[in-house]
Parts: sequence; structure tokens; C-alpha cells
Amino acid sequence: MQTLEIIKIGGKVIDVGMSLRKVLQAVAQLPQPKILVHGGGSMASTLAERLGITPVMVAGRRVTDAAMLDVATMVYAGKINKNVVADLQSHGCNALGLSGADAAIIRAVKRPVGDIDYGFVGDIEQVNTDTLSAFLELGLTPVFSAITYQRDGLLLNTNADTLAATLAASLAGQYAVRLTFVFEKAGVLDAKGKLITRLDEATFMRLKQEKVIADGMIPKLENAFAALAAGVQTVRLASDIYLLNNKLPCTTLIATP
Amino acid sequence: MQTLEIIKIGGKVIDVGMSLRKVLQAVAQLPQPKILVHGGGSMASTLAERLGITPVMVAGRRVTDAAMLDVATMVYAGKINKNVVADLQSHGCNALGLSGADAAIIRAVKRPVGDIDYGFVGDIEQVNTDTLSAFLELGLTPVFSAITYQRDGLLLNTNADTLAATLAASLAGQYAVRLTFVFEKAGVLDAKGKLITRLDEATFMRLKQEKVIADGMIPKLENAFAALAAGVQTVRLASDIYLLNNKLPCTTLIATP
Repeated sequence: MQTLEIIKIGGKVIDVGMSLRKVLQAVAQLPQPKILVHGGGSMASTLAERLGITPVMVAGRRVTDAAMLDVATMVYAGKINKNVVADLQSHGCNALGLSGADAAIIRAVKRPVGDIDYGFVGDIEQVNTDTLSAFLELGLTPVFSAITYQRDGLLLNTNADTLAATLAASLAGQYAVRLTFVFEKAGVLDAKGKLITRLDEATFMRLKQEKVIADGMIPKLENAFAALAAGVQTVRLASDIYLLNNKLPCTTLIATP
Repeated sequence: MQTLEIIKIGGKVIDVGMSLRKVLQAVAQLPQPKILVHGGGSMASTLAERLGITPVMVAGRRVTDAAMLDVATMVYAGKINKNVVADLQSHGCNALGLSGADAAIIRAVKRPVGDIDYGFVGDIEQVNTDTLSAFLELGLTPVFSAITYQRDGLLLNTNADTLAATLAASLAGQYAVRLTFVFEKAGVLDAKGKLITRLDEATFMRLKQEKVIADGMIPKLENAFAALAAGVQTVRLASDIYLLNNKLPCTTLIATP
């Protein structure tokens, strides 16, 4: 099977121009077919603040109301996506910026209202791998923002880690997928701040219980292990520099025997 | 040759939700391969105002500075483009939202500084018709915002009428192209406000001199006649209702013998 690189970038990698440009140059130089998924960093919050939009919080969780969905669509699918695409073009990488609505590639459903109403947040329902493969065969590099859509034409805000993991899992039948979550750390760190180079799910559960792994790292790793379980060949968490020099250490997930 | 519909929508058609939804439903129902190009209506100005960005004017002309380019990218390539794509998907039309940077389809150059420095405004240099045809062959409906890019990765703001006319001209060798500029009027009106159903270039020149045709209609018609001269089979100016019922009158351009 042909190797397919799926690279998720987010957080400070998006916010720091220098880091973003370096990562994009490294992505452009990867010889294999590849897909890039980007988060939004702090730009959406900054724009919302400038527009006087107050974050809606319910039970300590951020809710995507209509105004915030507009901001997310403008920042993720507009500003970040198109600047990333144009930057990749300047490095000779034929990028194609996409939201889930484009070519109906990632359809979602609005998260059902349970204890919390998350607002315009989408849970992925279906990935159209045929069209995605057709784009890869045309030599294109799909670049996804994490905006998806519902059958009725509603746009939805989706978690970018989940989107990357779901794309990887959906394509695992056709390609030997290598999924890399690129962020500001070298990988997953233990209680002493030392890099864990090989992480299995049992260790993850233990470190989670011990609160060594906390906050945003928990859903990120849940997504990552889900991708591994779904047949993704390699799942890694690595820093932006890793892409430039893959002799550097990073965290590779290993399946529990 | 196969027929290809290229439809440009702009102005009030974008601003009035009801008009936009009707037009998109009509576009979705066109049986032929099709490309949609959209302008921005007044949304970019509204957002700029809310952000406290003052329009930069030089010699009475609006200039796209860096802040305004960001706003244009967010509104045109983000908010409008993705909502249009999702709406078309809800009508069963497999839309693919694009800027010129995506798949390197429309490359531009920053307009040289002459008497006026227009800022980040792009003049189209090259259209990649091979990739565009490949998308059409996949059954996709490309939906363009008028954001283009330069070789060095710079995004540029481009006139949407010019973009639609240039796409039409570039594809005229491969398809029997029918280009329709959809806007708030029934077409081009004469001095008495009566619709001109067939307009040749000589009449256009005369009406321009008599100031019957003025302002934004002049560059629109210049673009339209340029497309006709470049081999586009049919060039029309029509109202949003025309797409729903093409027995209604509109303005069709005719080549001067």
C-alpha cells in the first residue's frame, strides 16, 4: 500500500508565524501524498474579542453560538486556510484548501443536546474517501480546516484533532497512513517532564488517572489511540521541528498487545 | 462541444438571503456542468467597519491594505464561500469552494504601482484549466471567491466580474461556455429605463458616452465584451429571477459584425 502522511497542526504552531512557515516548508518537501489538517490557534478568540462577541460558556464548556460559528468560518476556512494554501503553493506544493462541505468530503451532524447544548458543533458522520483519493491522484495536497456541514446546509464547528484522526481512520483501508499531531511540545511527557517515546494505551490510562496527562492532551490522545485502533499504521505526536528533522525524538503510539 | 455554465453572482444577490437562496437553488438545478463565481456584497465593508478599519482611499479609489485583505479573505473565501457551498450541497449539487490559490487555479500578480497604489489587488496572470476540467469531470461544481494569489504566496483581492470573465475566456476552447452575470436588474437598461435585450459593443460605447451606462456597469460590460471577443459562446446579464425562469427577458451581448 502507498504511504499517506496526514499531518495535523494546531495551537502555537498556527499562532507563531515563524513556526508555521517552517512547518509548511517541511510539509511541502515530504515526497509522499499528504493531507494537512489545521486548527485555529488563538486567532478566532482574538477576532471574537475585537468584535465584542462574548464567549458563551455552559457548565464550564465553550459553546459555539451563531456569531462564534461565523467567526470560526471566517478565521479557519478563510484567513488561515487560504494563507496556508498560498504559502504551500509558494513552496511548490499544489495545495487544495477544503472544509468538510467542499466536495461533500466530511459530513457531520449537530451534536444532540444532552446536559449541555454545545451549539453549532458537529460530530462527523461520513467521510467521502473516493473524492479525497481522486484529489490525491491528481497530485493535490488537501488542506482541511475543521469546519464541516450537515445535510441541510448548516455549517458546523468540529474539533480539528478528531477530524484528522477520522480522516486517517477512513483512509487506513486504502493507504498505509502515518498520522502526526504536530504541536508545541516534543511529544507526551511523563511526570518528570521527560519525553515518552513509546506510549501504549494502558500507560496513557494510568498517566491520565495520575493527572500527569491532563486537559487538552486527553482528547488529543483519545483521538490518536482511536486512529491506531482503526488501522492507522503509525500515530505520532511531535514538535514542529520534528518535521524538519525526523531523527529528533517524538512520541509514537503503540498498540496494547 | 459540451456546454458549461459560468454564473457570476454579486451585489444585492449576496446581501439578500432570500435572493441568494433562490439563486443557489436554481444553480443547483442546472443540468449542465457549471462554475459559480461570487462577489462579496456589502459584508466585507460591514465587517471592516465593526473592526474599526477605515477604508483607505487614494484619488477616489478604494485601496486594499493588509487589514482589508484579511477582511476580504475572511468574508469572501470563508464566510460567503463556505455557506454557499453548504447550501448547494443541501440542494444535491456537489460544490467545491475555491480561491485562486487552491490547486493553483488562478495565479495573479500584484497590480504594479502607477499613479495609484491599489495595494493587495491582483491582476490575473494564468488560469490552470486542466485542474478545473478535472474537477468538472469528477462531477464537481467549482465555487470561486475572488481571492487569488501570487507565486510568492501572497494572497490578492481580485475583481469578481473580471475573474468570471477570465475563467470563461480560458475555458472557451474546451467548452461551449455560457457566461451569465446575475445581479439586481433585469439586464442593461436604456435611457428610458427599458431593458436592452441585445447589446452590441458600438451601442455600449455610445451609451457610455451618453452616461446612460455608468459606474460599476462600465467595467462589468468591458469584462463581458472581452469574454465574448475571446470566444465565449453566450454572454448575458440577468436578474436573479432569470435563473429560475429563463423565459424572462435579459440582456444578451452580440458581437459587432
